[in-house]
Amino acid sequence: MAEGSGSIEFGSERVEAFSDAVFAVILTIMALELRPPGGFTLADVRDDLLPGLLVYALSFTFIGIYWNNHHHLLRAAERISGAVMWTNLFLLFWLSLIPVLTVWLREEYRHPLPAAAYGVVALAAGFAYSLLVRALIRANGRDSALGRAIGSDVKGYASLAIYAAAVALAFVSPWISYALYVAVALMWFVPDRRFAR
Amino acid sequence: MAEGSGSIEFGSERVEAFSDAVFAVILTIMALELRPPGGFTLADVRDDLLPGLLVYALSFTFIGIYWNNHHHLLRAAERISGAVMWTNLFLLFWLSLIPVLTVWLREEYRHPLPAAAYGVVALAAGFAYSLLVRALIRANGRDSALGRAIGSDVKGYASLAIYAAAVALAFVSPWISYALYVAVALMWFVPDRRFAR
Amino acid sequence: MAEGSGSIEFGSERVEAFSDAVFAVILTIMALELRPPGGFTLADVRDDLLPGLLVYALSFTFIGIYWNNHHHLLRAAERISGAVMWTNLFLLFWLSLIPVLTVWLREEYRHPLPAAAYGVVALAAGFAYSLLVRALIRANGRDSALGRAIGSDVKGYASLAIYAAAVALAFVSPWISYALYVAVALMWFVPDRRFAR
Amino acid sequence: MAEGSGSIEFGSERVEAFSDAVFAVILTIMALELRPPGGFTLADVRDDLLPGLLVYALSFTFIGIYWNNHHHLLRAAERISGAVMWTNLFLLFWLSLIPVLTVWLREEYRHPLPAAAYGVVALAAGFAYSLLVRALIRANGRDSALGRAIGSDVKGYASLAIYAAAVALAFVSPWISYALYVAVALMWFVPDRRFAR
Repeated sequence: MAEGSGSIEFGSERVEAFSDAVFAVILTIMALELRPPGGFTLADVRDDLLPGLLVYALSFTFIGIYWNNHHHLLRAAERISGAVMWTNLFLLFWLSLIPVLTVWLREEYRHPLPAAAYGVVALAAGFAYSLLVRALIRANGRDSALGRAIGSDVKGYASLAIYAAAVALAFVSPWISYALYVAVALMWFVPDRRFAR
Repeated sequence: MAEGSGSIEFGSERVEAFSDAVFAVILTIMALELRPPGGFTLADVRDDLLPGLLVYALSFTFIGIYWNNHHHLLRAAERISGAVMWTNLFLLFWLSLIPVLTVWLREEYRHPLPAAAYGVVALAAGFAYSLLVRALIRANGRDSALGRAIGSDVKGYASLAIYAAAVALAFVSPWISYALYVAVALMWFVPDRRFAR
Repeated sequence: MAEGSGSIEFGSERVEAFSDAVFAVILTIMALELRPPGGFTLADVRDDLLPGLLVYALSFTFIGIYWNNHHHLLRAAERISGAVMWTNLFLLFWLSLIPVLTVWLREEYRHPLPAAAYGVVALAAGFAYSLLVRALIRANGRDSALGRAIGSDVKGYASLAIYAAAVALAFVSPWISYALYVAVALMWFVPDRRFAR
Repeated sequence: MAEGSGSIEFGSERVEAFSDAVFAVILTIMALELRPPGGFTLADVRDDLLPGLLVYALSFTFIGIYWNNHHHLLRAAERISGAVMWTNLFLLFWLSLIPVLTVWLREEYRHPLPAAAYGVVALAAGFAYSLLVRALIRANGRDSALGRAIGSDVKGYASLAIYAAAVALAFVSPWISYALYVAVALMWFVPDRRFAR
């Protein structure tokens, strides 16, 4: 195991660029899953296209929020560790399941199982994001710009709690879950003072 | 809510990189939707491939114009705000619907509804673009290089008016709409003095 | 038309980044069009997968050569004009048709029409590339590093001549065309002294 | 052949950016191949979704490991040669076959042929990676930061040996191959001292 001991310093640019590309493909590929309506009346558009369009808008916003937060988070990071790279991939893994769930939800939005599955993946992505935050803090130090900028993550924990509730309540009615997913999305539109300028 | 007050400065590079990736996937994925002709005569190519190819060329040009304008716009920007990031995502959302409309148009170009739907999405994208311009001006100031470079957006407003007309006139004949879409595309090929070198 | 006269300088980075993303999606998406064989014997793999794999390898090499040349070309450029951006998009348009032709060729490689169509698109891409080179020279000047680096494009003109021959000879036998396409690809593997280090 | 003798210096940024985009599309596009389950019970999810999800997780990890290693490798490189660009494309070619193998494995994981084919492509990718390492060392010199950082590649050779065994043993039982693929993945999670900080 006569391995060299070269230690190479590196920043966050390539992790950002790679993640951006994954985010971009996830977003765009979901739109490709939309199918044109079968007929030519407004009723056809409503029945064939509208559910898919609404679910797409929800997933687009979901991914958009993650991109936005991810952008701010990595901008603040000065050092990247191996743990950061793997937790980042772990986050991207869960986010990459959103397109297939979006297809499922579009086709079977009246059933509790797809509604709950969406929440399970949202929970897993949220958990992965918190691992990424932790790995970044470990790599940059609590006293770094990043450590100070993050502070306590009230919004993140609230999102996780709401997603957990949405998973359980899907079996009462999937519409409760959808309302909760929309509520989380709206919550994130309110600008975050932490990274604001 | 004991959130930190760290304020992180950031430029337009990652917004550009992310948007570029989305533009690139939208463009390329449309080509994938093309299907080889069913036969081996030139008539098969004409009937099976030509409509799809023409609609693809139109949509490619449409997205290409947006990429071009977006490129110039963000190049001129020095500061990015949260509003810029969200209006940018809003623009990308509408542009991401172009591929599915391209498929619909290719298959049903003789009907008014797909022709009008194309114009509706073009209108929405144009509206989102004007929101993005506004957010950028607010973030950079009217007196910034960006603010001065933009000036009055005659071409933009003309495009929106033509798209609105195309939506209405699709119900007279979809061919009027297609002529108008091509006209808008040609108008944008004329180089824009605003950002020219 | 009281447009501002702000003139914004810009380099080749974003054009490169955008083109790279398009190249990357074209390459990867072709692989997705491959289909697993229907059976589990080596004969199934040979009959179902091998033609597709060979055509994919050819198209991958074709796009790879363009990426490689494009990379060198834009690296040498210091100034980008509007004409550069549009000729670049024009090149990407033709390259984006390679995936659908790859699918067609895989399924109907025994017919002259797909073999000839491949050559037509290769010709068009070569023509677009030469327009891009011309636009870059106009933007950077004949005496720039780029202008001097390009010199005379013997290899480029030879490729175009061979593609033209391949289109015509496809109607004698498509296998002649395939041999010519492979010959062009091999020709480009020989490192180009112009940009070499 | 009166070609100019302009020699243009260039670094690894664009090769990294391009490769990142390819990695990103490969990763994301595999997720798109997942199909929603046909029913709404947990048994449906288990039967329809679970095999695909596990194979996807394996392939995601496989590509993730390559991205990670590739990232470290190119970060350490200061000079890129033509050979580096072509061996890099050769590596990406093999990695781009992983999505179609993932689909095949998901649908026919009980048969030895897809299990062995996965190993063959893994072997080919490993071989391409070692060519890339060699080309990078030739371009940067044995005494460069890269040359010293790489040292002997014990883990890489071990992976190749295990993949070769997995190909052969697939014909005893495909489950042995899967166990070996997972073993290689786990081996790479152990952080590599060579590039560690």
